[in-house]
This record gives sequence, structure tokens and C-alpha cells, in this order.
Amino acid sequence: MSSKQVRADELAAMVDGQLQGDGSVIIEGLDSIEAAGPGQITFLARASRAELLQTTKASAVIVPLEIETSEKTLIRVKNPYLASAIIHNFLLEEPFEATGIHPRAHLGAGCQIGGEVSIEPCAVLGDNVRIGERVRIGAGVFIGDNSSIGDDTVIRANVSIEHGCAIGKRVTIHCGTVIGSDGYGYAQDDRGNHVKRPQVGSVRIDDDVEIGANCCVDRAAFGLTWIKSGTKIDNFVQVAHNVVVGENCLLVSYAALSGSTILGRNVVMGGKSSTKGHVRLADGVMVAGMGAVNKDLPAGAVVGGVPAIPIKQWTKAATVYGKIPEMRAEVRKLRKQLDELQARLAAKEENGKER
Amino acid sequence: MSSKQVRADELAAMVDGQLQGDGSVIIEGLDSIEAAGPGQITFLARASRAELLQTTKASAVIVPLEIETSEKTLIRVKNPYLASAIIHNFLLEEPFEATGIHPRAHLGAGCQIGGEVSIEPCAVLGDNVRIGERVRIGAGVFIGDNSSIGDDTVIRANVSIEHGCAIGKRVTIHCGTVIGSDGYGYAQDDRGNHVKRPQVGSVRIDDDVEIGANCCVDRAAFGLTWIKSGTKIDNFVQVAHNVVVGENCLLVSYAALSGSTILGRNVVMGGKSSTKGHVRLADGVMVAGMGAVNKDLPAGAVVGGVPAIPIKQWTKAATVYGKIPEMRAEVRKLRKQLDELQARLAAKEENGKER
Amino acid sequence: MSSKQVRADELAAMVDGQLQGDGSVIIEGLDSIEAAGPGQITFLARASRAELLQTTKASAVIVPLEIETSEKTLIRVKNPYLASAIIHNFLLEEPFEATGIHPRAHLGAGCQIGGEVSIEPCAVLGDNVRIGERVRIGAGVFIGDNSSIGDDTVIRANVSIEHGCAIGKRVTIHCGTVIGSDGYGYAQDDRGNHVKRPQVGSVRIDDDVEIGANCCVDRAAFGLTWIKSGTKIDNFVQVAHNVVVGENCLLVSYAALSGSTILGRNVVMGGKSSTKGHVRLADGVMVAGMGAVNKDLPAGAVVGGVPAIPIKQWTKAATVYGKIPEMRAEVRKLRKQLDELQARLAAKEENGKER
Repeated sequence: MSSKQVRADELAAMVDGQLQGDGSVIIEGLDSIEAAGPGQITFLARASRAELLQTTKASAVIVPLEIETSEKTLIRVKNPYLASAIIHNFLLEEPFEATGIHPRAHLGAGCQIGGEVSIEPCAVLGDNVRIGERVRIGAGVFIGDNSSIGDDTVIRANVSIEHGCAIGKRVTIHCGTVIGSDGYGYAQDDRGNHVKRPQVGSVRIDDDVEIGANCCVDRAAFGLTWIKSGTKIDNFVQVAHNVVVGENCLLVSYAALSGSTILGRNVVMGGKSSTKGHVRLADGVMVAGMGAVNKDLPAGAVVGGVPAIPIKQWTKAATVYGKIPEMRAEVRKLRKQLDELQARLAAKEENGKER
Repeated sequence: MSSKQVRADELAAMVDGQLQGDGSVIIEGLDSIEAAGPGQITFLARASRAELLQTTKASAVIVPLEIETSEKTLIRVKNPYLASAIIHNFLLEEPFEATGIHPRAHLGAGCQIGGEVSIEPCAVLGDNVRIGERVRIGAGVFIGDNSSIGDDTVIRANVSIEHGCAIGKRVTIHCGTVIGSDGYGYAQDDRGNHVKRPQVGSVRIDDDVEIGANCCVDRAAFGLTWIKSGTKIDNFVQVAHNVVVGENCLLVSYAALSGSTILGRNVVMGGKSSTKGHVRLADGVMVAGMGAVNKDLPAGAVVGGVPAIPIKQWTKAATVYGKIPEMRAEVRKLRKQLDELQARLAAKEENGKER
Repeated sequence: MSSKQVRADELAAMVDGQLQGDGSVIIEGLDSIEAAGPGQITFLARASRAELLQTTKASAVIVPLEIETSEKTLIRVKNPYLASAIIHNFLLEEPFEATGIHPRAHLGAGCQIGGEVSIEPCAVLGDNVRIGERVRIGAGVFIGDNSSIGDDTVIRANVSIEHGCAIGKRVTIHCGTVIGSDGYGYAQDDRGNHVKRPQVGSVRIDDDVEIGANCCVDRAAFGLTWIKSGTKIDNFVQVAHNVVVGENCLLVSYAALSGSTILGRNVVMGGKSSTKGHVRLADGVMVAGMGAVNKDLPAGAVVGGVPAIPIKQWTKAATVYGKIPEMRAEVRKLRKQLDELQARLAAKEENGKER
């Protein structure tokens, strides 16, 4: 894939790593420790699996600092996951190849399109859509009137972006995701009919956000639904109307942020976790998978459960959940024995008095 | 957006509201209480936030009856949410603008299309599809053979409607939703292989239904999967084969109705709630978020939990869930102390006898 | 639909059933017991509902062995569900009708397309895509570079299959599903930024797999995400990077397999169930709906709950969950009474000593 050829010592410098062994080895790619071959670099995530260094065919290995020496060329770093991600991205990096606007794509009136773009067949853009430089718009993508897409952003196939949404730079949105669908808001009349509350706000997605496949980010009722820079979102995630997601959050698959939830920076929502509407989760909050938050949480809180409680408390409770029936049987037994004891003691006391 | 100009007293009449102040004020739009400016109306949902009346720049405010006077023009109503929804819809209402059948849309043989429609590029209709008047079909929509779409219905981009489905009038279906996919039904043979049970029924969606983005409504095995009029569905909702959803139900995001579930009128399924197959939920049942219903429920039942139990009972249990470990420790302590007491009392009794 | 006309005794032979009554009856279709009419066959799933045999208008009925006789022509079998599925599939079977490559479909360079295919309008294929014989590609489908689709496979509308994925024979993928989206993998740097770990593996889906609507199957970080033959997947299912799903598994709606989960054969994941990353579920494991597996499970294990425990234990615990508050009140009462008893006994003992 990559046509780059780089010396191991150059790669080490790129990640502030300590080179051990022959730094002149030429590296052309990165693969897993089992699959990497000559000319490739790989990584060892944990020192406890050092035996893999014996068998890998890679020419160089990114290792944790605990590994000091090997027959292989080593790049010693604090965080091999991070270093390998940086090196791998570098090796895969390629100049943007603009294929232009495909004749089978359709553009509405007044669109402003960057000079270097790739817009695939059957992409449909409404009126006054703005597309930056080095943007890829996949096949079957729909972008509504007055929406904008920043430089270096990738919109994959069959994504739908409704009107008036602003997508930042270096954003990736994976297939099937919907941005700017109406928020879910109705008012009930006396006969039980639901009257739609118009959803006239929009969606803003800042730079360096990645959104997985088949997600939904609803437009605001009024104002903005806003996902701030650096946030990374897995598949099937729901971001409801007027939610604000802070910088660098992680939203794992099926995480559901109800209307007007406010997340601080670096919040982690585990898989299938959720928030009640209008709650605020401060910086660094972590919600365990399946956790359902029903109130505001202070910075750094780590919670789990339905409703969510401190994670340690939840873990302990979850661990003994299966023991509830036996606990219940024991309580009944205690009750019976206590009543019996009480009767015997009363008899004894009565007996004492009589004497 | 709207070009309407309406007097405040006319708007008050429209929602049976009591006008307070200058009824001749001209209103051109509606916005939130923070964002609304001169010429706009806004609403105050709760009397407890009356101080916002001092700061809003709106020309008129829809308020609850408790608010009796203000410097602003007021429209006093029982339900400000409902009144503002009605007024907002009225202000936004525009005549249908038919753009016709785009040359890059594709229609199969024998389609019957209303005279006033907008069918966007890359929409693909099969054979014998019927489209009513004032219908919008978004870009990339697929509608299979013999399906029909009623008047004033909006099908947004990249929706897929399989063959033989009947969609009513004034329905909205948001992007990415799939209607009429096969139900999930297999029969297992002696070797553990799963033989598909053909899904030959279809889907019927009645008038005034709204379905969110990326939902799935499966076709029936035989007969119908049926969503009745006025029901409003959030994103990521699953309606399995042969489900019947009554009038005016609310299905919140990720709600999952398993095969042959029958819902009455005005049932509310909270976010991530679910039903076991073949259960019946009578009129007005409410299932809390994450609740999993495994049996029939009578009219008006309000439940939560896995499996779902009456909501009050569930709420109490959920509240003390985190205390289970300490309860368990206490039970053990009680056991130990009781055994000890028993021994002491037995000794006492023995002692008594001896004397 | 079907134009087949078959004798009842031929159908009986097809499913190793025992014919009872007139085997010369001609059958042209299959419907539910309520809807079937003359010339159709139907089935009775359970002997307990034998009264339906009196009222059905079907010409023949597939029944369980317990039903021995009736005025109708019967096909007696061990498993009526299975037999009716086999007969229904047979009756519906039609020769593949190739409509060719629609002029509004788009093919990249170097594609290899079978002689008999149906590729619908607005389907977009990248470069070097291989399509087998008798394949149907729906409207709006995207298939990325170097992917392949085996013989007799059906890809429904608006499915997205990213580059380099291998789909087997007789596979069905329903609308809106995404195959080959990037796995969710990042490494965090010292400032809390998330650096993407490139997802350079791919997806392999073996023969006879069926995947529902709006699912996501992510490509591997390295190597393969692999769904083995005969597995059947409901809607909204997430198969994360590097997951391996064994043969003939059932993954019910919203089931979520986290990264590197390994499932054996015939594993059943109930609706909304999930696995933690890197766990192994051996052959025949069953996870109840909503169950969250956090460790390896041996063959045949049946579990439920969060985290998942043996199903019997979970069912018992779930049944008494609502009693926790009253249990807690009882424990407090026991504590009070025990303390009192203790005091009384101590007094008694003191009293004894004094005497």
C-alpha cells in the first residue's frame, strides 16, 4: 500500500523512542507481530509477551521500555500502542488524489467546491453546499442545502447530512450515518395526539472528529447540537437534539446521549451506556458499558449501573447480584430462628420471675 | 424562513389562549427565549422561570396561566409546549413546492405518480409504485415494486422501502430507515443449520406517523406489520415482524419490539426498552428506559427493569441496588451473632435445668 | 407468486413426512393457518391448537406427529416449523431472472461481473470488484475496490461494502447494512488526544450467511473480521473488528460483539446482549437478551445478566430483584430485635451470676 521507505532510527525519532540495535534497517510497512515480515515494523504492547520477539519476522519492533534488548532492532517507548499508531499513520500517508466531481454526482445551485476534491457517483448535493479542499464524498452520499464540509474531510458512502449542518476539517464520517435528522420532540394535546415541535436548529461538528457507521446526530430544536474537536464515535451512537459533546470524548457503540446532555472534555461513554436528558457530565467522567446516568456528575467520576452509581459500588453489587435469592432465604431463616429465640428467652425470663 | 406576518391576537385565538397586552404586535417567527428577537414570539415552559420574561427580546411570549402580567404581550395557555408547537408549525407552514421527477431519478414500469411531487436525484422506484400528491422522495431513496406512498408524505434521503409496503398520508420517514426488510425467522434442522422461514407478509404504516433515522420495520412473516396513525418513533427503533403498534404510541430511541408484540393506543416505550415476542401491552402502558417486558400488561401499567415490574417497585429496588453488598455483610453478621446468642441461651437453659 | 403446482405426497416426501389422507391434492402455495385457502398448504406448529384444523380452508396441513388424523390431507412431521420452511422455500423458488447491469449503475475499472446478474440503478462499484453468477445488487449499493461477492448472493438497497471485503455464496445482506467500516481503535497521547490506529484488515463473510438491516461489521485492525457459514444475523447487530463468529450462530437484534470476541459454532446471542472484548464463547453458548458476557464461557453454557451468570441463577435473582427493599427493611428489623435480645440475655446472665 505504502511506497515509503524509512530508516528505523528516523521512525524512533518521530515517536521520541530509544533506538536499540541497527537503526539503518529500512522499513516499508507495519503489521501485527504474527503477520509482519522482513522490511516491516511491528509492536509489542506488553512486556509480558516478550517471547513473541523470538518468533516475529519483522525487521524492527516497537516495545515498552521494560524490554531492553533483543536481536531485533527495537524502538523503546512508554506507550507502544501510541507509537505504533503514529508510525503506522505516517507509513500509510499518501498525497490526496483528487478524482474531481464525477459526472454522475449531482450538485444543486450555488455550490462552492474546492479545487481538489473527489465526489463519487450518485452523491447528491443540495443548493449552496460548500466543500473544502481535499474532501472525499462517497457514493450515494446526500448533503442538504447550505451545509458545509471542511478541508481534508472524508464522508463515506451512503451518509446523509441534512440541510444547514457545519462539518469541520479532517473529520471522517463512516457509511450510513445520518447527521441533522430532526430531534424527537412532540407536545401532547388533550386527545393524546402528539404535535411535532419543529426542529429548526442545526448540527456543528468540529475538527478531527470521527463518527462511525450507522450513527445518528439529530439537529437541535433551536440552536445547535455540537460535537467538539477530537471526539471519536463508534457505530450506532445516538446524539440527540441540543447535546453538546466536549473535546476528545469517546462514545462507544450504542451509547445514547438524550436531549440537551452536556459532556465536558475527555468523557468516555461505554458501549450501550446512556444519559437522561439535560444532565451534565464534567471533564473526564467515565460511564461503564450499559450504565445509565440520571443526574449531573462531577469531573473524574467513574460510574456504572442503572441508574449509574460509583463504579466500585456497582461492581461489588453486580458481583453479588446472583446471591440475592440465597441471601433472601438466609434472612427468612434468621427471622424464624430469631422469633424462636425470642420465645425461648421470654419463657426463660417468665420462668425467672416465677422463681 | 417563514414569510408570514400575523398579529399576536390571531395567534392567541389559534391556541385558545388568553391575550394579555398589545394584541396588534406583528409576529413573523418563533425562537427560543434566549434567541428570540423583535418580531418574534417565544414561549416560557414553566412559571418558575418567569425572570426570563425580563430579559427576552421577543415581542410576545406564550406563558403558562400562572403568569398573569408582564410588559410583554403574553399568550396565556394551559400548555405552553403545545401552544408553541401549534404556532411554530403554523408560522413555518409553506405551500408545497413541486420540483417534479428529477431526470436522474429512476422509475420502474407502471408507476402512478401524483401531479405535484418532488422526487430527488438517485431515488429509485421499482415497478408499479404509487406516489400520492405533494410527496417528497429524497435523494438515494429506494422504493420496491408495488409499494405505495400517501399524499403529503416525506421520505428523506437514503431510506429503503422494500416491495409491497403501504405508507399512509402525512407520514415522515427520516434518513437511513429501512421499511419492509425480512423478519428474523428460521427453523433449525437436526444438524444445527438454520432454514429461513420465508417472510411473505408486508408493512402498513398509517397516517401521521413519524419514523426517525436509521430505524428498521420488518415485514411480516405472513400478514402485516402495522404501525397505526399518529405514532411517533425516534431513531434506531426496531419493529419486528408481525408487530402491531397502536395509535399515538411513542417509541423512544433503540426501543425494540420483538416479533408479534401488540401495543394498544398511546403506549410509551422508553429508550432502549424492549418486549419479548407475542406480548400485549394495553392502552397507555409506559415502559421506562431499559425496561424489558416479558408478559402482557394491563391498560395504564407503568413498569421498569429487567424483567419489567411496577415502576415504583423497580425504582425502590434500583435505589438500594448499590447497598446489596453491605446488606449481605450485615446478614452474615446477624447469622454469626444469632448463632452465638443461641449457644448462650442454650447454656443458660441447661444451667437453669441443672439447678 | 409461485407458479408451481405440486402434489401433497411429493411435498411429504420432500420433508420425510408421513402422508395422511389424499396425497393427490395439488398445492400451489403456503400461507398461515388463518389465511390459507384451497390449493394452499399450511402448518400447525403445536398439537395443542388442533381445533384450528376444523376451521382452516387450506387443502393440506403440515402437523406434528401427535396429530394422527383429520378430514384434511396431513403431512405429519417431527418439526412442523422446519418442514413448512422447507416446503415454503421450495414453492417460492424461481429461476434467477437476470436484468443485467442497469445503465445507471456505475462500475469502476477492472471489475469482473458474472454473466447472469442484476445490478440496479445507482449501484456504485469501485475498481476490481468481482461479482459472481446470479447475484443481485440493489439500488444505491456501494461496493468498494477489490471486494468480491459470491454466486447467488443478494445485496439489498443502500448497503455499503467497503474495499477489500470478501462475501461468500448464497449470502443475503439487507438494506442499510455496512460491511468493512473501520474498527474503533485509538491510542491516547499525553494531552488526551486520540490518535487513530489504522484499520488495515478486512472482512470475510462465508456462504449462507444472512445479515439483517442496518447492521455494522467492522473491518479488522490487522487480519480478518470473519463470519462463518450459516450464521444468521438480525437487524442493528454490531460485529466489531477482529471478531470471529462461528458457523450457524444466531445474533439477535442489537447484539454487540466487542473487538476480538471469538464465538464457536451455534452460539446464540439474544437481543441487546453483548460481549466484552477478547472473550471466547465456545460452541452452543446461549446468552439471554440483555446479557453482558465479561469472560470466556465453556461449551453449552447458558447465561444472562450484567455481568452474565448462569441463567438459572440469574432468573432467580431477577425474580426477587423487586423484593430487595423489603429484604433490607427486614434485615434492619432483625438487627434491632437481635440487639434487644442480646441486651435481654446479657441482663439475664448478669442476673444469674448475681444470684
